[in-house]
Amino acid sequence: MAYTLQQLSDLEEIKVLKARYFRGIDTADWALLEGMFTDDVNVEYVGGDYHVRLKGAAAMMEFLANSFHSGTLGMHHGHTPEIAFTGPDSAEGTWYLEDIFINLEEEFHTFGSAIYRDVYLREGGTWRISSTVYDRVMEVTEPLHEGARYVVSRLATAGLKPEQRRDISHLITWETLG
Amino acid sequence: MAYTLQQLSDLEEIKVLKARYFRGIDTADWALLEGMFTDDVNVEYVGGDYHVRLKGAAAMMEFLANSFHSGTLGMHHGHTPEIAFTGPDSAEGTWYLEDIFINLEEEFHTFGSAIYRDVYLREGGTWRISSTVYDRVMEVTEPLHEGARYVVSRLATAGLKPEQRRDISHLITWETLG
Amino acid sequence: MAYTLQQLSDLEEIKVLKARYFRGIDTADWALLEGMFTDDVNVEYVGGDYHVRLKGAAAMMEFLANSFHSGTLGMHHGHTPEIAFTGPDSAEGTWYLEDIFINLEEEFHTFGSAIYRDVYLREGGTWRISSTVYDRVMEVTEPLHEGARYVVSRLATAGLKPEQRRDISHLITWETLG
Repeated sequence: MAYTLQQLSDLEEIKVLKARYFRGIDTADWALLEGMFTDDVNVEYVGGDYHVRLKGAAAMMEFLANSFHSGTLGMHHGHTPEIAFTGPDSAEGTWYLEDIFINLEEEFHTFGSAIYRDVYLREGGTWRISSTVYDRVMEVTEPLHEGARYVVSRLATAGLKPEQRRDISHLITWETLG
Repeated sequence: MAYTLQQLSDLEEIKVLKARYFRGIDTADWALLEGMFTDDVNVEYVGGDYHVRLKGAAAMMEFLANSFHSGTLGMHHGHTPEIAFTGPDSAEGTWYLEDIFINLEEEFHTFGSAIYRDVYLREGGTWRISSTVYDRVMEVTEPLHEGARYVVSRLATAGLKPEQRRDISHLITWETLG
Repeated sequence: MAYTLQQLSDLEEIKVLKARYFRGIDTADWALLEGMFTDDVNVEYVGGDYHVRLKGAAAMMEFLANSFHSGTLGMHHGHTPEIAFTGPDSAEGTWYLEDIFINLEEEFHTFGSAIYRDVYLREGGTWRISSTVYDRVMEVTEPLHEGARYVVSRLATAGLKPEQRRDISHLITWETLG
């Protein structure tokens, strides 16, 4: 039942893949994200107020670039990966997310956590994300904090400016608030 | 002094064990936690206001289920493990915790960090937690944040409802506040 | 392109090195930090309001001890390492930081994230940090939270008291706020 050397090496590569994903979205580094998803990637993010469902790397890149835009600050940290191989070139992964997401244009500060269920495939020697689904564990939304100074926001400079953004409402279902 | 292949494999298994622990408590997934502790597990959690001291898997499960209940939101993330083997089937581990714990019934929001010192034993091929002790590094308790909306709480649905809970005061010593 | 057994072992050692660094600064455990840096270590931390630039292990220890002092609470967690070997005894590492830093004397609460770019060298069998540079991704500074109780602060007891501190202003450039 022990991991083989090859599997331990693959585990490290998959962890680095996901590391680059988190780092990429919070810094709007779209070049870093290129080639990280399979062409037909399946994405489903279930939050309290929103439900994102999309298919394909192009839709994913459009969703990400228009979500983590110049009016936001994002921190997405993935923790304690649990990765199981389903074949020599396929694996499933569970990650426990912490995120902070501040939207200065819509004036809210959200923090919380979620559990990712991913599928990874190796294509041409490179591990890619083939499916990524998360369910929220905790989601708290607050007004912007009084007296807060937003001293550094990488997304303010690297993210899409208002005039560059595209409508992504077809990718998101917003829940009616009770 | 390098790690052997067997040790690297064991490191991964121990990391996944602890990952499942954190994921289990925050989602009230008691089935996931079954078998994760040795029968005689030693537990000691030293916070600013509380001191938890208990022995045995049954007491641990009772403590967890009645702490992470339907009136709370919990986020417990373990970071940067430092694991050292003390034998082929035993190891010690240090983890650096971040936690957020919100109690909507008692109306407080705590966040902070702690350092875990664990002992792991392999029994019948499975790594288990034999001792887990933490000391707080930072603990800040605030009133519930004004205007906060608790949009998702996994514990609200999965955790024990008030009428299902049992008294665990024998497991906790509360410090008198100065 | 797979990692060798030696490299996987080295990855673990480097991860533990960085783990001890984070744990050491937040607990003012200067003995733990001894020998963790090369003698000529290069340090550059670029925040929104500050720019730390220094050379050498002695200056680094002086900077750390006088930054994480008895009037502060610190939480520095390093996530999702991406480590690449540049030789048998050298490696580069990227870490994604989350930090909370509360200064009770100057009355502010900062939280945010940054990306570390490190260089590690193995000297006499021990991995050390030879260069460590970070750039902020997010930095938010708030007044101390109303009603907050600082229940545990390891730095309050372990950190340098006012009369023990030394001036480190030669190591930091403060930005003029706009």
